[in-house]
Amino acid sequence: MSDSWLDQVAWPESGLIAAVAQEAGSGRVLMLAWMNREALALTAASGEAVYWSRSRNRLWKKGQASGHVQRVKEIRLDCDADAVLLSVEQVGGIACHTGRHHCFFRRLEEARWVTVEPQLKDPGAIYPGKTD
Amino acid sequence: MSDSWLDQVAWPESGLIAAVAQEAGSGRVLMLAWMNREALALTAASGEAVYWSRSRNRLWKKGQASGHVQRVKEIRLDCDADAVLLSVEQVGGIACHTGRHHCFFRRLEEARWVTVEPQLKDPGAIYPGKTD
Repeated sequence: MSDSWLDQVAWPESGLIAAVAQEAGSGRVLMLAWMNREALALTAASGEAVYWSRSRNRLWKKGQASGHVQRVKEIRLDCDADAVLLSVEQVGGIACHTGRHHCFFRRLEEARWVTVEPQLKDPGAIYPGKTD
Repeated sequence: MSDSWLDQVAWPESGLIAAVAQEAGSGRVLMLAWMNREALALTAASGEAVYWSRSRNRLWKKGQASGHVQRVKEIRLDCDADAVLLSVEQVGGIACHTGRHHCFFRRLEEARWVTVEPQLKDPGAIYPGKTD
């Protein structure tokens, strides 16, 4: 398989582009993460989302610790070729490390961020080896 | 109105966070853009999307040139407080400067990016003062 599709991405100096994961069935925007070239290549090759963790500074296979893998149905590129949109099936129904369905769980209401989504699972039960 | 909600955003060194615009009715992810503090404040205050243009290095009121304003129904913040999701009504039904409904119009198919969305309007007719 040719890598020319990877060359067509307008990789910025940082090497990272934004990746939006949208749930295939519900249309819900689950999360925004980052991908370098290798993460995008691995995602396409494996059919499961792999991101670049900016905090840990390494590749991050989504669901590796939690089991909450994202099965990728479709990958799209935007007009500037520097952002991708993944259509995914979210295994376990939980995309967020806080135990919520998705990461955008705070809504602006009268100049306050209000949490409007329930915690479906205790993060301690998602990541039993971690303290948070 | 207090500005403390703006202080709760984890502004990175660049001053810019990613902003995803999703169409309220269709659930379609229209585009990914960038916001600095002022853009987010203006968006919340005006109810219409204002971004930061990285290419032009200035505030960019979406639709100022094209009339394709985004009326903001909801603003959400993610778990890391460094990305926002806007639920918008896309005036004119065209979010992309290429004249398409949205910016994610290329789909990865067998290691090729394939354009899968029609051009609804000639960009020359959207931006009559511009050559592109």
